[in-house]
Amino acid sequence: MKQHAIFELAKTELASVEQELASIIRSRVDLVSDIGGHLLRAGGKRLRPALYILCAKCGSQVPAGLVPVAAAIELIHMATLVHDDVIDSAATRRGLATANARWGNHVTVLAGDYLFAKAFSLIAVHGGARALQILTETICSICEGEISQARDLFNPRQSMEDYLTRIDNKTACFIAASCELGAMTAGLTTADAEALRLYGYAIGMAFQITDDLLDVTASSEQIGKPAGNDLRQGVLTLPVLYALQHSPQAGELRRIIEARDMTDANVQKGIAVVHTTDAVEYCYGRVSDYLTTARRALPASLPAEVYKSLWDIADFVGLRKY
Amino acid sequence: MKQHAIFELAKTELASVEQELASIIRSRVDLVSDIGGHLLRAGGKRLRPALYILCAKCGSQVPAGLVPVAAAIELIHMATLVHDDVIDSAATRRGLATANARWGNHVTVLAGDYLFAKAFSLIAVHGGARALQILTETICSICEGEISQARDLFNPRQSMEDYLTRIDNKTACFIAASCELGAMTAGLTTADAEALRLYGYAIGMAFQITDDLLDVTASSEQIGKPAGNDLRQGVLTLPVLYALQHSPQAGELRRIIEARDMTDANVQKGIAVVHTTDAVEYCYGRVSDYLTTARRALPASLPAEVYKSLWDIADFVGLRKY
Repeated sequence: MKQHAIFELAKTELASVEQELASIIRSRVDLVSDIGGHLLRAGGKRLRPALYILCAKCGSQVPAGLVPVAAAIELIHMATLVHDDVIDSAATRRGLATANARWGNHVTVLAGDYLFAKAFSLIAVHGGARALQILTETICSICEGEISQARDLFNPRQSMEDYLTRIDNKTACFIAASCELGAMTAGLTTADAEALRLYGYAIGMAFQITDDLLDVTASSEQIGKPAGNDLRQGVLTLPVLYALQHSPQAGELRRIIEARDMTDANVQKGIAVVHTTDAVEYCYGRVSDYLTTARRALPASLPAEVYKSLWDIADFVGLRKY
Repeated sequence: MKQHAIFELAKTELASVEQELASIIRSRVDLVSDIGGHLLRAGGKRLRPALYILCAKCGSQVPAGLVPVAAAIELIHMATLVHDDVIDSAATRRGLATANARWGNHVTVLAGDYLFAKAFSLIAVHGGARALQILTETICSICEGEISQARDLFNPRQSMEDYLTRIDNKTACFIAASCELGAMTAGLTTADAEALRLYGYAIGMAFQITDDLLDVTASSEQIGKPAGNDLRQGVLTLPVLYALQHSPQAGELRRIIEARDMTDANVQKGIAVVHTTDAVEYCYGRVSDYLTTARRALPASLPAEVYKSLWDIADFVGLRKY
């Protein structure tokens, strides 16, 4: 199943979102436009605006302000990715040089701030106070999740529960908010908006676990960034935490992590320890559980074509190989 | 004249703003609270919220939401300072270790984002769409100003006009917006709100030029950060740009800048070249012009005590030695 197929129902609006994004990143200062253009070309799945749009289409008519709010949602996501690049000193994202590798931390932080400000400006005009409230709380959660991640780098004593709380904050919460906002825009009942929030949360958890799994199972070419990157940077993901609890070679893995000696050989050794266990199978099991939760959360009252799209997105997340 | 004297009229509200700030930076994640508390203890002049409050007191009654919006204004300022620390790798600000020296760039960027999000959340609830619009545009301007500054580091071919545009964007625009927002909150006429915006702009220009002057005239102890810091980092300020145009030793200064060889000896030599000209006098002349503009902009119809406070603030900015 291809991405464009699952987002078919939101195709027209997503094309308008791309135009809106292109127009927003134009600035009086060349460097701002350069960085914005680079970010835009780097692309992305547009998962959050797509979910927002699909949920917003559950009402009797297409709501006003749909496209600018969807663009604002993607701008917030882009801003967090840009600031994430500062953080990780990551050299590539999706196969392209990251903003910070091209422009330095300095300008990259500012470009992220600029995107945040543009996003809030759009929401102020088109989204209303409640949308703004939900999205600002989301950003606070993302920051708290990322700061927890920073605090727990190279810490083998963190639990799988710590990991789940962290990815809830840093990923699932935003996807949940995108769905909830869409539902509110469509004028759905509070119960249905909460159900779609739960759907988004579960999709987000599944999405992030899959992402983290790919780091220990896929090749660098497949995922467009160096494989084993999380472990190299001390970010301990679910398969690694599982292996720390279940592998007979857990002591070896713990020593590599605590020594922070992340040579290519040690990263490979660490990943090999993960594969001495059924960590990958366990994680796919968790992903499958979350996707079941997501599907079950879908209110039966949704328009049939939206229901089908959201269902297909759950399938897509489960099948994702890169 | 002491700072507490000029802000006397806003004293009660400013005390509430401090309480509000302290309550906002509490977070579920310890590290967020730590960084927030550190920022709060580092203090600051609270110039922006003070001007906002003074202008907001021009109406017939104290507006609702005054304190949270004032707190949001200071949070935005704090967030930009935090991100500025990432940028400059500055080791101290106001005599205290900067956030990035204590926690690293990683967490510092996130802490700044968290403050931005909290600020927008407050404005969404208490400020309304127009306030949000003004403040998001202000943040875009600040980013554009800072990015221009980054682009023009160590560039001796920039003009004094480039400098003035840059400080307009990065400093004056925010102070102007604080005054305008206050005036709007008080329900003043559009003409009076625009006059107070001009007042804020001119105060901001004078404030930033004074700040930049202190870098070449004051001691490190006086300003709480290393003197000559701007030049060392390649940020060319008004006195330096003036000297590049007017000093017989401009060639020497240009060579030091272009070589980017900012040893202590070269920074001292550069500052000495500035003092071969009447750059300091020239800059004080510009400050004086801006303060005249500020005073003239004050509408005669303002309540007498607010008028006097705003007048005194112009005097304070002119006399500032640290």
